[in-house]
Amino acid sequence: MIRVTLWYENIQESGKLPKEFKPSGMGEENLVWFRQMVEDSAAKIKEVYPKGLMETLAEHLRACDNIQVTSVTMDMPEYGLPQELLENTDVLVWWAHLGHEAVPDRLVERIQRRVWMGMGLISLHSSHPSKIMCRLLGTSGTLRWRDGDFCRIWNINPAHPIAQGIPEYIDLEEEEMYGEPFDIPAPEEIVFLSWFRGGEVLRSGCTWHRGCGKIFYFQPGHETNTAYHNPYVKKIIENAVRWAAPVVWRKQIECSYIEVSPESEQKNARRDEK
Amino acid sequence: MIRVTLWYENIQESGKLPKEFKPSGMGEENLVWFRQMVEDSAAKIKEVYPKGLMETLAEHLRACDNIQVTSVTMDMPEYGLPQELLENTDVLVWWAHLGHEAVPDRLVERIQRRVWMGMGLISLHSSHPSKIMCRLLGTSGTLRWRDGDFCRIWNINPAHPIAQGIPEYIDLEEEEMYGEPFDIPAPEEIVFLSWFRGGEVLRSGCTWHRGCGKIFYFQPGHETNTAYHNPYVKKIIENAVRWAAPVVWRKQIECSYIEVSPESEQKNARRDEK
Amino acid sequence: MIRVTLWYENIQESGKLPKEFKPSGMGEENLVWFRQMVEDSAAKIKEVYPKGLMETLAEHLRACDNIQVTSVTMDMPEYGLPQELLENTDVLVWWAHLGHEAVPDRLVERIQRRVWMGMGLISLHSSHPSKIMCRLLGTSGTLRWRDGDFCRIWNINPAHPIAQGIPEYIDLEEEEMYGEPFDIPAPEEIVFLSWFRGGEVLRSGCTWHRGCGKIFYFQPGHETNTAYHNPYVKKIIENAVRWAAPVVWRKQIECSYIEVSPESEQKNARRDEK
Amino acid sequence: MIRVTLWYENIQESGKLPKEFKPSGMGEENLVWFRQMVEDSAAKIKEVYPKGLMETLAEHLRACDNIQVTSVTMDMPEYGLPQELLENTDVLVWWAHLGHEAVPDRLVERIQRRVWMGMGLISLHSSHPSKIMCRLLGTSGTLRWRDGDFCRIWNINPAHPIAQGIPEYIDLEEEEMYGEPFDIPAPEEIVFLSWFRGGEVLRSGCTWHRGCGKIFYFQPGHETNTAYHNPYVKKIIENAVRWAAPVVWRKQIECSYIEVSPESEQKNARRDEK
Repeated sequence: MIRVTLWYENIQESGKLPKEFKPSGMGEENLVWFRQMVEDSAAKIKEVYPKGLMETLAEHLRACDNIQVTSVTMDMPEYGLPQELLENTDVLVWWAHLGHEAVPDRLVERIQRRVWMGMGLISLHSSHPSKIMCRLLGTSGTLRWRDGDFCRIWNINPAHPIAQGIPEYIDLEEEEMYGEPFDIPAPEEIVFLSWFRGGEVLRSGCTWHRGCGKIFYFQPGHETNTAYHNPYVKKIIENAVRWAAPVVWRKQIECSYIEVSPESEQKNARRDEK
Repeated sequence: MIRVTLWYENIQESGKLPKEFKPSGMGEENLVWFRQMVEDSAAKIKEVYPKGLMETLAEHLRACDNIQVTSVTMDMPEYGLPQELLENTDVLVWWAHLGHEAVPDRLVERIQRRVWMGMGLISLHSSHPSKIMCRLLGTSGTLRWRDGDFCRIWNINPAHPIAQGIPEYIDLEEEEMYGEPFDIPAPEEIVFLSWFRGGEVLRSGCTWHRGCGKIFYFQPGHETNTAYHNPYVKKIIENAVRWAAPVVWRKQIECSYIEVSPESEQKNARRDEK
Repeated sequence: MIRVTLWYENIQESGKLPKEFKPSGMGEENLVWFRQMVEDSAAKIKEVYPKGLMETLAEHLRACDNIQVTSVTMDMPEYGLPQELLENTDVLVWWAHLGHEAVPDRLVERIQRRVWMGMGLISLHSSHPSKIMCRLLGTSGTLRWRDGDFCRIWNINPAHPIAQGIPEYIDLEEEEMYGEPFDIPAPEEIVFLSWFRGGEVLRSGCTWHRGCGKIFYFQPGHETNTAYHNPYVKKIIENAVRWAAPVVWRKQIECSYIEVSPESEQKNARRDEK
Repeated sequence: MIRVTLWYENIQESGKLPKEFKPSGMGEENLVWFRQMVEDSAAKIKEVYPKGLMETLAEHLRACDNIQVTSVTMDMPEYGLPQELLENTDVLVWWAHLGHEAVPDRLVERIQRRVWMGMGLISLHSSHPSKIMCRLLGTSGTLRWRDGDFCRIWNINPAHPIAQGIPEYIDLEEEEMYGEPFDIPAPEEIVFLSWFRGGEVLRSGCTWHRGCGKIFYFQPGHETNTAYHNPYVKKIIENAVRWAAPVVWRKQIECSYIEVSPESEQKNARRDEK
C-alpha cells in the first residue's frame, strides 16, 4: 500500500488570500489587484473542477489499487503537513502557485529530509519554482510563460514506467504555456517533451534522485484549464506515484565516523579466529 | 590549429548512384525510381547550394581562426577517408543520407577507433542512423520524419560552449521534419530542442563522449533546404568543432595487464630506498 | 514470469577449444600454450563449481519466484541462441571470456535488436569487451587487469532496486582485478564501486538503457574464483534480472514516415466533425 | 583573465573560535573541548602550511597565466565576501570545515544566485556538507569518514579538461578518509575516484552544472595533511578553475512573461512586410 499525500495550495480555489500573505516585492496597490484576481479565479476553478482541482486527482488515485490517499491544503493547521503525516507519507504530490513564499523554511527542510530518507515527490505544474523544488534541485526553476495555449505532450521514453499506457502524444486543448529555457539540473531521465502551438517547447516530464528519494516534475495542471480531467494525465500521475514509491528508507542523515577501518576489522576478525 | 575533415556522401549532389549501389531491401523496380529521384535532386541541390552543400560549410570553416579544412566525398578513393587522412583529423564532420550501407564496416571501425582515441565527430542531419553513429551510440537512431516543415530551434543550454553567440531560438523556414521518439542513448547534454509547425519536437542538438572522443549530433541540413546558409547554423557547427577538438590522444586501445600492483610497487620502492 | 536465458561460453569449463577457434593476433606457438591453459583451467573450474559456473547461478535463479530459466552454452547449435529462444527471452545473462571473437556478427546484431525491442541484458565479469557489449555501448570496454586479488564491493546506491538486501559492502576473498580507467560510456547509474587490496578501484555495477532495453554490467565472476557462491552476489544478479525485465516491447525498429502531421490531422478531424 | 576568489574558513588556522560560535547540538562541556581542539590544531596547520593552507593554493594560482587571485577569510568583514567582491568573481574556491553553520543564509543565497548567473564553484575537501553545496546540489553531502589514511586518487576520465597533465593515479601519504556512500546527486561527470588503504572508495572528483555555473568537488585537503603541496593536486585545482570559468553570464534570474508568442510575432512581422 503506497501512502500518498496530496498537498494543495488552494489559495485561488478558496478565493481567500491569507491575511498575513504578502508576495515578495509587491506594493500595496498591486496587492489590492492581486486579492481581486484571487477572488475572481475561485469562481472559474469551481466551474472547471466542481469537486476541486486536487480532489479530482485524489478521486482518481483513491480508485487505484494499493494506493491510499490523504488530501490536505495549505490553510490547514501546520500548513496541512504536520510531522506525523509527513512521517506516514510514501509519496507527496505537491501543487502550489501563488503561495510558495508562504511555506515556512522549517517545513521545507522537513520535506527535503523526508525525500532524502526515501519519500517520493511529484511536483505539478506551477510548483516548478516552489521552495521545495529549489531546495532539492538547487536551481531557480525559471522558465518562459504565457497564458493559455494548445499543448501537445510527446512521450519520448515509451519504455519508462511513468509512460506505461500512454500513447505517442497527448493533446491538451488549453494549458498555460511553460517554455524553455527551463532552469533545472539536466534531468536524469526525460519522459515527456511538450510542444505549444504558439511556438515553444519544454522538457515537461523529468526525473531526478535526491538521497534515497525520487522526484518527478510534470508540467500540466493550470487551475483554470482541464488537464486533470484528461485520463492520460491522470494515468501519468498514477504511474509516477508507483514509480516514486520508496524502495528503502534511510534511517539517519549524518556522516558516520568509522573508528576501525574495514581492513583492520577484517584483520582483527582473523586474529580472533585463531 | 584544429584539423577538420568534412566527409560528404554527395550521391544526390552528383546525381550519380554508384553502379554497385543497392539499398538493402529495395527491389529492381524501386531501384529505377530511386535512380531517377537521385538524378532529379541533383538539380535542386545545385540551386540551393551553388557551391555544393558541404562546400558551403567548408567555406565558412575555412574563414575561421585556427581551423584547417579538408573536404572529401564518398566517391573519392577509399571512400574519401584513407587511413592517413583519418590519422590527421582532429574533428570529423559527417553528412550522409542514402549511402549509409555503402560505407564498408572496416572503415566504420577505423573511424570508431579514432574517436576512442580522441577525435571529435560532428554528425549532421540524416547521418542519425549512419553506421558510425549506430556503432558509437549503440542505438538504432530511428525517429519520425516528414517532408519540409517550418522548424524553430530552441537554445535550451545557453551556457554551453556550442550555444555561444546563438539567440534564444533560430527559425528555419523549411527543413525535413525529424521528430520524437528519437532512439538515442540519453544525451549527456542537450543543447537544442526543435519545434516543428506541424506539431512535433526533437532533441536536436545532443552530446556524448565515447572513449577520449566527443560526439555532437545536430539535426538541420536537408540537402534541398537552406539551413547551411543560416549564419547561426554555421556558427553552431563552428562552435561544435571547437568543443569537439581533442584534449588528449589515447595511444592504444587495449586492456593493460598489470603484473605488479600499485601497492606492491610502492612497497618495493620503499624497500629499495633503505 | 520473467523468462531468463543464461548464455555461457564454457570454453574453459569444457576444456575444449573449438577446432576453428583462433584468437585474433595469436601466433601458432601461442595457440599451443593457449590450448593447454584451457585444458588446465577446466579442472580448476570443476573444483570451484562442481555443478558448473553458470549452472550455479541457474540453480539460484530457478529457486526464485516468477523467474523461469533456460541455460545454454556456446557449443550448442546456433551458438546456443537460436532465433526462437531469443524471441522468448525477457532477460539475457551473458558470461563470456575467451570466445568473444567466435560469436558471429549476425547473432550479435540479432541480440542488439532484441535489446532495442525491450530485452534486458546482464553482462557478467569478462563479458566487458564482448561484441554485444561493444555494440550496445559503443566503447572498447578496455580496463586494467591483474590476477587474483581481494575485492571489496561497495554499495554506493542503497536505494537502487539492484542493491536491495545488500549490505554496505561485500568482501570477496579472491577475484580477478579489473581496474580503472574502464572505457565505458558514463553509466546512467552506478550501483557498486569495487576496491582491490592491491590498490585499484572500478565502477563495477553500472546501468544503461539502449532503446527499450536495460543493461547491467557486474564485475565479479572469474571462472576459478568463488563469487557465484556468495549469497549477496547471487542476490544482486537476481535483483538485476527483475530490474531489467521488460516494461514494454517495441514492435518495429525503423523510422516512421508521417504523411499527415499531427496539426493537419487535428484540423481534418475538426472539419469532419462539422 | 579569470578572477578567482579563494574563500577560507580559517577557524582552525587562527585557533580562534568566534565568540558567538556555537556548533548546532553541542553542549557547554563539549564546547570547552572543542575550543581547545581548535587552538591545538592551529599549531599543527602552521607546521604543515607555514604560509597558510589557502595561501599555499593562492601562491600556486597567482603564478598561473591569466588567473588573478583574491584571498579572503571568514573572519573578515561581511564574512570575507562582500557583494562587490562576489560580483567581481569568476570562480569561487571554497574551503570550510567547522564553520558551515556560521555562514549566514543570506550570503549562501547570494553565492547560489551568482553561480546560477555563471560563476564557477570549486568546493574543496570538508566543504562537502557546507551550506552552499547543500543548496546547490540539494543533497545532504553525508559520507563515511575516518582519520588519516593513505589515499590513491585514480584518474578515470583522462580526456577531461580537469585531468590534463595528471598521471594514471596520485598517491597521498595521508589524508582524512572520506568514503562511500557519499550523498550527492549522480555527478554529471566523475573525473577521479579515490582508494583508501583502509578499505574504502570515494567519487572524489565530481562535476555538476547549476544554471549557467559549473561546480567541481574535489576531496583532498585536510588541514593537517600535505595535499596542497602536491603538484598534481595543485594542477587539478588550476585545471578546475579554468574549466569552471564562465562562458556566458545570465543577466536576470526570473521567469519571463511572453505576451506575444513566437508564432504570432512571426505572423505580425510578415503582415508588416506587406
